[in-house]
Amino acid sequence: MKRVSILGSTGSIGTQALDVVSAHPGEFQVTALAARANVARLAEQANRFKPSVLSIGSPELMEPLFAALRYEPRSIGHGIAGLRQAAGPPADVVLAATDGMAALEAVTDAIDRGITVALANKELAVAAGEALFARAHASGARIMPVDSEHSAVFQCLLGERKIDIARIVLTASGGPLADLALEQMRDVTPAQALAHPTWAMGAKNSLDSATMMNKGLEAIEASRFFDLAPEQIEIVIHRQSVAHAFVIFRDGSVKAQLAAPDMRLPIGYALSYPQRLGGADTAATRAALALDGAPARLTFEPVDERRFPAVALCYRALRAGGTHPAVLSAANEEAGRAFLQGKIKYPDISALVERALEAHAPNPATLDAVRIADAWARATTLAAIDKGKNALSTP
Amino acid sequence: MKRVSILGSTGSIGTQALDVVSAHPGEFQVTALAARANVARLAEQANRFKPSVLSIGSPELMEPLFAALRYEPRSIGHGIAGLRQAAGPPADVVLAATDGMAALEAVTDAIDRGITVALANKELAVAAGEALFARAHASGARIMPVDSEHSAVFQCLLGERKIDIARIVLTASGGPLADLALEQMRDVTPAQALAHPTWAMGAKNSLDSATMMNKGLEAIEASRFFDLAPEQIEIVIHRQSVAHAFVIFRDGSVKAQLAAPDMRLPIGYALSYPQRLGGADTAATRAALALDGAPARLTFEPVDERRFPAVALCYRALRAGGTHPAVLSAANEEAGRAFLQGKIKYPDISALVERALEAHAPNPATLDAVRIADAWARATTLAAIDKGKNALSTP
Repeated sequence: MKRVSILGSTGSIGTQALDVVSAHPGEFQVTALAARANVARLAEQANRFKPSVLSIGSPELMEPLFAALRYEPRSIGHGIAGLRQAAGPPADVVLAATDGMAALEAVTDAIDRGITVALANKELAVAAGEALFARAHASGARIMPVDSEHSAVFQCLLGERKIDIARIVLTASGGPLADLALEQMRDVTPAQALAHPTWAMGAKNSLDSATMMNKGLEAIEASRFFDLAPEQIEIVIHRQSVAHAFVIFRDGSVKAQLAAPDMRLPIGYALSYPQRLGGADTAATRAALALDGAPARLTFEPVDERRFPAVALCYRALRAGGTHPAVLSAANEEAGRAFLQGKIKYPDISALVERALEAHAPNPATLDAVRIADAWARATTLAAIDKGKNALSTP
Repeated sequence: MKRVSILGSTGSIGTQALDVVSAHPGEFQVTALAARANVARLAEQANRFKPSVLSIGSPELMEPLFAALRYEPRSIGHGIAGLRQAAGPPADVVLAATDGMAALEAVTDAIDRGITVALANKELAVAAGEALFARAHASGARIMPVDSEHSAVFQCLLGERKIDIARIVLTASGGPLADLALEQMRDVTPAQALAHPTWAMGAKNSLDSATMMNKGLEAIEASRFFDLAPEQIEIVIHRQSVAHAFVIFRDGSVKAQLAAPDMRLPIGYALSYPQRLGGADTAATRAALALDGAPARLTFEPVDERRFPAVALCYRALRAGGTHPAVLSAANEEAGRAFLQGKIKYPDISALVERALEAHAPNPATLDAVRIADAWARATTLAAIDKGKNALSTP
């Protein structure tokens, strides 16, 4: 029985993680749940799983949370201290599924204590990955990928030697704008950008998928997870979202991991590793391989970097190193939010990220430097949005 | 430096294995070469690689072999004893790439001595697999797959637990007759059957690919290699011959291995494992994944068992167990040869195999019983061919 702490339990990844726990009775015990603001859902989850530790984003939410509980947890915390407590013992594995940088200290604590961290928070991995993986190396903590692409690479690398890896290839669904012409990109609306064809995700991730910023962020993440150089990480469009990644070995052999586009699979893997959970519904996967009696096909296409400039920005930040990835991620988050709020146009997202990267004087990516770079990038981007209003777009 | 012995060095797999050795100077030392009848090519290979042990099929070929050598090997043997010596120390790995059952004793010896056997001889794996794997289990010898499909499964299983395997899927190119209508199958000529679209192989393997007997034999082999039940092994048509096999795990995750259809890759892997060789030409693989800038696709189709009755025969033999697979393999070899010689029609191949299976009273698959079943099946099949001439085909 694995003891699981979930930071960000009311979000998309958090709720799916609890689905996994429910679907495998006897495998997991939920010891802590933490959420930012959704008191009602957190209370409902807590009443069902009865974790001994709870945490909520801000102190004024503690009272309503406590009032909604039908059991008595050992502790209820709030803010960064609450997250740190939720990420501590007795958890065997901490699922970091918060947004932004809120869980940085909590995740760092868990890593320093040698607790396994299932890292679903892309921003944390991108901005602070260098420091987090260095600490995990020192403490012996395992950092498990949760993204389907990184889970795929991780699975393909089981039993392999680092020296034998030539390259990895992350697949991208192409998102809702895969077929949009360059000249139509100027007028993309939030509704268009959020209509993802294969994955059900939160708004931030859906938008990142439309811009393909998510794939570039994943390239940065992959570089941290698997200690690879930027030129060892490639991206292809694979619309069926069945093959999640490839690893090309130096002898010319390639391994791929495939699965139905259902986040509960990589979440379950991250929580259960080195075991695999049973009882999967393999119907979608069988259909993808023509095992249901009907022909099937998988397609692969190159990425058009003119229509998806975010990809090149990510590689640029990865190559520049230091605090550049933190700036990229923070600027993208603020610009994306502004776009969804109707404050800027679609092409402004990449333009603002590029602007932030160009204005940034990088530092080595210590945790403190990452925090400062993150705050600077948000402030700079918000100032640019405020100043530029709708005049930001460049042709 | 691995010491390599190659049994069947002048055949398709043997010569490609020597290509691998040549392409990786410093990795391998060829300590023994054995061939059945091609004295000229064996002498040429021997003069290049200077193995200390040579073996040729029959005693009258020893003198011409000796005369063609430009160095003095430690020993030249012939027949079964010659193969046994070639498969012994100082070899670290014995590549069994002979045809039929000739190398059974030699391979058994190597396994009993704990020497790694790279098993390219499908007939041996099918007929004697049960006994060979039991002996390898006892001696601790490793039996490495050489077929691209089994190499693929092996690679996908690295670092995985047996209990987590749900099923495996072997891919088949479909062979040269993939699109032939059922009613045209009666009139297939040897030339049609040997025109394989993607793999360059010997005549026996090419014909087995046309009937898809090869894929059924591979299902039996896979059952031995990976200790799987018949219902855990599936087959799909994959015309591009890029994805060689899939492993479906019980959590719904699937791993695949892909590579250009070039036998030197799995041969090199079998010889170099647990290392991977470098310097591969990955152009074909990159093209298959759209990494060369052009779209790509992989297709999968179910197998039509009416047009390819050999597949069901193989599963039947596998389920029946004991000496049934040995009978299947031997009857297929004799029937296939008769077809290529114009003695029987194409549908007679499967009909003769079925007839042999039906007439066979199985025994537990000890090595002796396998030898006897093999001889019985050949005799029975040859007698049926002789008796039936061109009247064998059933509608």
